[in-house]
Amino acid sequence: MPEKRLQELGITLPPPPKPVASYVPSVVSGNLLFVSGQIPVSGGKLVCEGIVGKDLDVEKARDAARTCILNALAVVKEQLVDLGRVKKIVKLSGYVASAPDFTQQPAVVNGASDLLVDVFGEEKGRHSRVAVGVASLPLNAPVEIDLIVEIE
Amino acid sequence: MPEKRLQELGITLPPPPKPVASYVPSVVSGNLLFVSGQIPVSGGKLVCEGIVGKDLDVEKARDAARTCILNALAVVKEQLVDLGRVKKIVKLSGYVASAPDFTQQPAVVNGASDLLVDVFGEEKGRHSRVAVGVASLPLNAPVEIDLIVEIE
Amino acid sequence: MPEKRLQELGITLPPPPKPVASYVPSVVSGNLLFVSGQIPVSGGKLVCEGIVGKDLDVEKARDAARTCILNALAVVKEQLVDLGRVKKIVKLSGYVASAPDFTQQPAVVNGASDLLVDVFGEEKGRHSRVAVGVASLPLNAPVEIDLIVEIE
Repeated sequence: MPEKRLQELGITLPPPPKPVASYVPSVVSGNLLFVSGQIPVSGGKLVCEGIVGKDLDVEKARDAARTCILNALAVVKEQLVDLGRVKKIVKLSGYVASAPDFTQQPAVVNGASDLLVDVFGEEKGRHSRVAVGVASLPLNAPVEIDLIVEIE
Repeated sequence: MPEKRLQELGITLPPPPKPVASYVPSVVSGNLLFVSGQIPVSGGKLVCEGIVGKDLDVEKARDAARTCILNALAVVKEQLVDLGRVKKIVKLSGYVASAPDFTQQPAVVNGASDLLVDVFGEEKGRHSRVAVGVASLPLNAPVEIDLIVEIE
Repeated sequence: MPEKRLQELGITLPPPPKPVASYVPSVVSGNLLFVSGQIPVSGGKLVCEGIVGKDLDVEKARDAARTCILNALAVVKEQLVDLGRVKKIVKLSGYVASAPDFTQQPAVVNGASDLLVDVFGEEKGRHSRVAVGVASLPLNAPVEIDLIVEIE
């Protein structure tokens, strides 16, 4: 029960962020839910910003990845109403704004992956993943994450 | 009727660009159509090139994103014959070649998103999206865009 | 028969790489198989590393892309047991760690695409694709590749 697990973890999902453009937070096609790229916004502001390995370190960026996934879960809940309708987290793409010599993208994106497993359990929460280091991200975010989720 | 809407907008789709490698412009799997990454080529040449925020500005890059999506629609039409068979634009991924301090990727990719909504309408045209700033792109293109489309 | 074709090509697939984090090598959803991002690891070590166009050239990077796809095929085989269950390679995403002036990502990613066509044939092996130049990659890998595969 992911909703109950969030409670146990003391996590209240934020209001789902509104896209500021001609796109929507998520789209359902068949039994796949595509969640738009989420940046680490909380209360309308980035929790941290800049290029990882230059402006901020792995720990800060990992926390930012966790904030991204909370926003993603808020979007999933807005679409499905009940997170219990999630059958499987299928794919997570993690984009880390990286200095050319920063190569610890997996450690950063683990902040997102670990929370998914914690909330949905091993069976449903473990996902395929790609993690890459990009040049820069919207609003100077250090991390952006999108998801593909299988639903009942 | 997306075909009629294109006419109203005075838009003639270009011939679909041919990949210059061991891949194809699009693949259908079930009722999903995956369109390969499109760069802003028109008449066999890039409409502009370079790194956004260094070699060109947001306006130019937004126009380039629009050209990318025209190429993508040409590929969709080649595959489906009739754009009316598009049920939903599911996901747009926008890659913007970016200087490390360029953070307006959403404004650039809106050039693509806005046209999709204009052609397919709110219901079918609005899509999930990710926009990131990459280090560089094929042929020195400033933008590359790929699509997942749900078909009838 | 992809297994036989691998033999003819003198290729033995490596043991599938183990992710070092809270994710899994691949996930099946419906008849799509999502393979996690693969880097050019062989025998537990990167076959080459660095930024393409600065630390290594196109040829080396193309070989690295080939190693990525061997790892991806090892993951597919681990999941499906028999590569003959592959119905279609649907989508390949190629991320090339790139100097800002390196624009030959397609030539690099062809190392992966060409092998897929060689192993699965034109009909099943040709795929949609996106190739972009990123700032850096996990462990300082020059290339990372993920796949979506349609299965029987």
